[in-house]
Amino acid sequence: MPGFALEPDQLEWCGELRVLAGARLRPLADKGEPGRVNRPLVEALGEHGLLARLFESGALDLCLMRESLAYACTEAETALALQGLGAHPVAAYGTDAQRGRWLPEVTAGRAVAAFALSEPDAGSDAAALSLNAVENSGGWRLTGEKCWISNAPEADFYTVFARTTPGAGARGVTAFLVPADRPGLTGAALDMLSPHAIGSLDFDGVPVSTDDILGEPDQGFRVAMNTLNLFRPSVGAFAVGMAQAALDATLAHTARRTAFGGPLKDLQAVAHRVADMATRTEAARLLVYAAAAAYDRGDAGIARGSAMAKLFATETAQYVVDAAVQLHGARALQRGHLLEHLYREVRAPRIYEGASEVQRTIIAKELYR
Amino acid sequence: MPGFALEPDQLEWCGELRVLAGARLRPLADKGEPGRVNRPLVEALGEHGLLARLFESGALDLCLMRESLAYACTEAETALALQGLGAHPVAAYGTDAQRGRWLPEVTAGRAVAAFALSEPDAGSDAAALSLNAVENSGGWRLTGEKCWISNAPEADFYTVFARTTPGAGARGVTAFLVPADRPGLTGAALDMLSPHAIGSLDFDGVPVSTDDILGEPDQGFRVAMNTLNLFRPSVGAFAVGMAQAALDATLAHTARRTAFGGPLKDLQAVAHRVADMATRTEAARLLVYAAAAAYDRGDAGIARGSAMAKLFATETAQYVVDAAVQLHGARALQRGHLLEHLYREVRAPRIYEGASEVQRTIIAKELYR
Amino acid sequence: MPGFALEPDQLEWCGELRVLAGARLRPLADKGEPGRVNRPLVEALGEHGLLARLFESGALDLCLMRESLAYACTEAETALALQGLGAHPVAAYGTDAQRGRWLPEVTAGRAVAAFALSEPDAGSDAAALSLNAVENSGGWRLTGEKCWISNAPEADFYTVFARTTPGAGARGVTAFLVPADRPGLTGAALDMLSPHAIGSLDFDGVPVSTDDILGEPDQGFRVAMNTLNLFRPSVGAFAVGMAQAALDATLAHTARRTAFGGPLKDLQAVAHRVADMATRTEAARLLVYAAAAAYDRGDAGIARGSAMAKLFATETAQYVVDAAVQLHGARALQRGHLLEHLYREVRAPRIYEGASEVQRTIIAKELYR
Amino acid sequence: MPGFALEPDQLEWCGELRVLAGARLRPLADKGEPGRVNRPLVEALGEHGLLARLFESGALDLCLMRESLAYACTEAETALALQGLGAHPVAAYGTDAQRGRWLPEVTAGRAVAAFALSEPDAGSDAAALSLNAVENSGGWRLTGEKCWISNAPEADFYTVFARTTPGAGARGVTAFLVPADRPGLTGAALDMLSPHAIGSLDFDGVPVSTDDILGEPDQGFRVAMNTLNLFRPSVGAFAVGMAQAALDATLAHTARRTAFGGPLKDLQAVAHRVADMATRTEAARLLVYAAAAAYDRGDAGIARGSAMAKLFATETAQYVVDAAVQLHGARALQRGHLLEHLYREVRAPRIYEGASEVQRTIIAKELYR
Repeated sequence: MPGFALEPDQLEWCGELRVLAGARLRPLADKGEPGRVNRPLVEALGEHGLLARLFESGALDLCLMRESLAYACTEAETALALQGLGAHPVAAYGTDAQRGRWLPEVTAGRAVAAFALSEPDAGSDAAALSLNAVENSGGWRLTGEKCWISNAPEADFYTVFARTTPGAGARGVTAFLVPADRPGLTGAALDMLSPHAIGSLDFDGVPVSTDDILGEPDQGFRVAMNTLNLFRPSVGAFAVGMAQAALDATLAHTARRTAFGGPLKDLQAVAHRVADMATRTEAARLLVYAAAAAYDRGDAGIARGSAMAKLFATETAQYVVDAAVQLHGARALQRGHLLEHLYREVRAPRIYEGASEVQRTIIAKELYR
Repeated sequence: MPGFALEPDQLEWCGELRVLAGARLRPLADKGEPGRVNRPLVEALGEHGLLARLFESGALDLCLMRESLAYACTEAETALALQGLGAHPVAAYGTDAQRGRWLPEVTAGRAVAAFALSEPDAGSDAAALSLNAVENSGGWRLTGEKCWISNAPEADFYTVFARTTPGAGARGVTAFLVPADRPGLTGAALDMLSPHAIGSLDFDGVPVSTDDILGEPDQGFRVAMNTLNLFRPSVGAFAVGMAQAALDATLAHTARRTAFGGPLKDLQAVAHRVADMATRTEAARLLVYAAAAAYDRGDAGIARGSAMAKLFATETAQYVVDAAVQLHGARALQRGHLLEHLYREVRAPRIYEGASEVQRTIIAKELYR
Repeated sequence: MPGFALEPDQLEWCGELRVLAGARLRPLADKGEPGRVNRPLVEALGEHGLLARLFESGALDLCLMRESLAYACTEAETALALQGLGAHPVAAYGTDAQRGRWLPEVTAGRAVAAFALSEPDAGSDAAALSLNAVENSGGWRLTGEKCWISNAPEADFYTVFARTTPGAGARGVTAFLVPADRPGLTGAALDMLSPHAIGSLDFDGVPVSTDDILGEPDQGFRVAMNTLNLFRPSVGAFAVGMAQAALDATLAHTARRTAFGGPLKDLQAVAHRVADMATRTEAARLLVYAAAAAYDRGDAGIARGSAMAKLFATETAQYVVDAAVQLHGARALQRGHLLEHLYREVRAPRIYEGASEVQRTIIAKELYR
Repeated sequence: MPGFALEPDQLEWCGELRVLAGARLRPLADKGEPGRVNRPLVEALGEHGLLARLFESGALDLCLMRESLAYACTEAETALALQGLGAHPVAAYGTDAQRGRWLPEVTAGRAVAAFALSEPDAGSDAAALSLNAVENSGGWRLTGEKCWISNAPEADFYTVFARTTPGAGARGVTAFLVPADRPGLTGAALDMLSPHAIGSLDFDGVPVSTDDILGEPDQGFRVAMNTLNLFRPSVGAFAVGMAQAALDATLAHTARRTAFGGPLKDLQAVAHRVADMATRTEAARLLVYAAAAAYDRGDAGIARGSAMAKLFATETAQYVVDAAVQLHGARALQRGHLLEHLYREVRAPRIYEGASEVQRTIIAKELYR
């Protein structure tokens, strides 16, 4: 019968992942440098078999991994997700040569992948994509700029989306696998609110050939969309993991700390706020699991549920983290406090991989079909 | 594997129920008189086997019935729910004699049941319950008042909660099955915002005996709580059904009606609002199904999920109905329009069977366990 | 120095108006029939000099009258506002003949006025206005329909906006003063959620001449807009009056009623909600007064502030009334209770005279100037 | 007549302050070190006469300064406010000796002041204040800890609140002026989300005498409350200045940047959001000005309005900054971007000087008087 709940073995796995994240990955993350790729952390993800799992299992497992890691170590969560996002096009669309060259390295955590779609002037508007692929002696030369690319400029290869047919909107874009050492490819780190490695890439006539194509020429937008469709619910899972961490920290703090003659939790303004935080987190979690399960079943019409999951979960996580900060008071704003970290982490997912406004547009389009 | 979705046969059943509600029950409801019990409608629920199903199946089925009926006929939904709420204590705690006397009549729709818990000064506070049961020659005399009792004063019998042990708080309350024709029992209809039969009851020394007890003496609060626990997610289901009806009406209206040179749906303020309405409705639906499925599995800790389902779904339905009114404009405020009806219907569930504030208190209590 | 507060004499006047509304107008309103024009009430407004004041003073005074009357008698408030809305175009644009014929009757409360702008398919989109004025022997014949016209079909005259130049959008509309007894003019009452007289009008070749024009031919849209600009902040004032009434009722109820061992007001969930209700009401009031004072000073750029006042105040009143219902519980949903009345009253102002979405569009347009 | 608007000379002054902040103070702030007192910036505030103005004028002028400086330079705004907060008790309660010693230095920007009230376990609960003042040879020894003290540990003197009468709750607290060089006083900087100098103070038997008392012994809570009452609306003004900066940046960005074939501002989801941002900002501004003007007039009952102003304005600023981030997209999350800065700045005012929850409690208490 339909359960609307995880199976016991899934719950157990999530518990193990949380422990792993807290005990093994958190210490590695703490040794990392803000704004830089943390290679020991990526390698640890490989050693524990999590990166291999990215390419073996479906959307729901991806969600459970992201949620559980995020609960105790957002840096590990993000490192995992970025390996998946950058290398999934290789796994799904790559030739045997491409797959053989890169996937073992990616799953071992020795090669760092990146998904290079967004541009300064083409956030959510694929038709505006302007990184130019100009034909040149049987191949192309890539010229232009990518921006806000996670893992750039330190990744070992990039899944790059470039315009091969001018004026063709979404239909003239091709996906290329571009190793980081290609001539003409340079990059710069960006200093962001969140602690992750994010950068810009500059393409100055970078040569690519048909061997570098992922999928079919001019079909790159489909590569991008299918990859984002798989990952969309899991961005929600990342958000749910953060929300749960903020909630649990708040439950512990308000049970422990006293004011006005009793524990904070005895104040109704605290208790009722916590109830709302938990309720919305649970609603977000169910939307995420439902979207991922539908993806794994191959249901028709998954775009709507996936967009709902990302929209609702990322907006909810912001609400929950903000409320958690408020219920902690000034201590939550000290650097090093979990909530100071989450306040900075939680903001970006509402923007990347399709901002909340883009998700609403997707949902509405599906509703009016 | 866990699906986080209804099974095909459940979806099909829901579809049939919606059709039944729209085609057969809606016309009966339209012939009813506001504020009065609609006996032909109750009988139709019996004829179509829905009332029998109340006592044969679990919380999830109850939710599917309430959601599906609410979608097309809130009057039928409420009539069904009230038969369940009033007679469930008989089914679960009644003696063979009580069950034999009343359940066949209830499931046939010939006897109308009512659940008489609330009092003018004891909304959510069981310890304040003051309808007095004074011992008298081997039985009791009930004296006092009940208020905002659905189906009163027209029901054929009442499940009445009365104080048998003064000063004992929740532990001194007994549940009695009181037929409507007992001497000393009178009642009056109340004219409410919603169209349902709701009234007050006056007990002037109404005689009851041990044969009338449901469950054990002084254990009536447990009868009330167990009944409300079963029904709590389904109040959320009622809300989800109303929200879906409001959403679908809005989708149809905004696709059809034009303004500023195109259909309303092409305005982003419309499309994005509709996306939020649908997203929250879906989140509410999942919380409801998850709570009901947990109840049916007998999971530990269902109080939290049930309270979340009721809280979130009833608050969401208010949001969705309000937004639907806004997107319809003035026509939605005309009597006879679905949304005028829903605007009046949607308000009460946030108050009855434990107001939203009570649900938050329950959730917090569970979280801090 | 700038005070950001009313002067003592204004506060005193408001107090007198509240007393008048509660003591003299409320009883008349209670004798009225829902959905019908209450002529004794209109006449009382005349006798107490309030209708005369409509045409003697500015936007701030109008706001103070509407807020104060709304506090104790929304029926009186609405009757006053509709006399103003319907007759202001006569006062501001009418010929001496028109003014002499109608204004004394309007200010005495003997003639009932109405503002007939909206149509079934042209809510907020002036370019879509389709009531046709076809030229005919030196005059016009009006043919078409108006809908959701307050005071229709019982008013004594209508300020009617009709299309005199087809295809000219907002620039081809003319305002006419149409007495109710013109041949071809019929109407029907609509049964609405709120208790006011609202109806539709059917124009079947209704003859009008140049003597009936208000302002200049084809300049009727300006007449409509200037009238709405004057009244826009005062719709917000109506909303503020309702919000204050709901707030004060809640303060009284929660101070008096006990639960869980003390007055409701000692529960933090109650006290903090009441604080939010009061805070938003006060913010709305200040936006209303600021917009009205700017109008009276003839400041440039009043459109923005007026739209903000209407938007914020009407949305706030909905929030406040809804919260008040919640804090009162089931009793608030009984017919005859102030909050049941306000729950039905408060919904329409977010839609009429420019829905909240239209106000947002106006504000944005002004911001981007 | 009551204007509900600033006078022309006030508007002009605000304009000048914005220019000053952007042109002169912003460059000094940019040269400062995060988390450290920026003495050149404080001195510049003195040179431009702003610090002197703190002690010469009232609450409304304070609000105008804070709002205007915040618009272009939150660091300058905060430096100004902290001089006021720390030195106002000296100005209002100090002896001639204390005033003569410190005020000229403070207004010149040569001495940095700090207000040392909060403790790790006594955020908003005065009765819990535990920094101990133990009598000792005609004076006291201060022992204990202060936490989250702005300008600590670099300030030149501290207004310190210490418990002189144990067990007496708010009535046993005394305010002392403690120069930073007193023996036994040490401190440590805290690294916070916002860029300001905030630290903890450790008192290890710090000697104070009656000459160091501000006001009367055991009356220090009154000193604290009167100071906070004066500054409360101006925290709201700080928030309004940030909100306006975020709004103006958003207007500029969305007018300039294109997507989907036109400027962002042509998307209704953008335009309507901007309208809400502006509306709430304006409402917050009016609440702030009204509270400050009431303070300056010496109106009775100013606690309510001041609490409303702080509550509403700080919550609104969070909403507006968050929306501005969303409408800017990923660029807003880059360090150095105004909005990345404001996202970190805007969070603390909802917590300090009485968290939003404390303000709600104050408001409710006043409403139920």
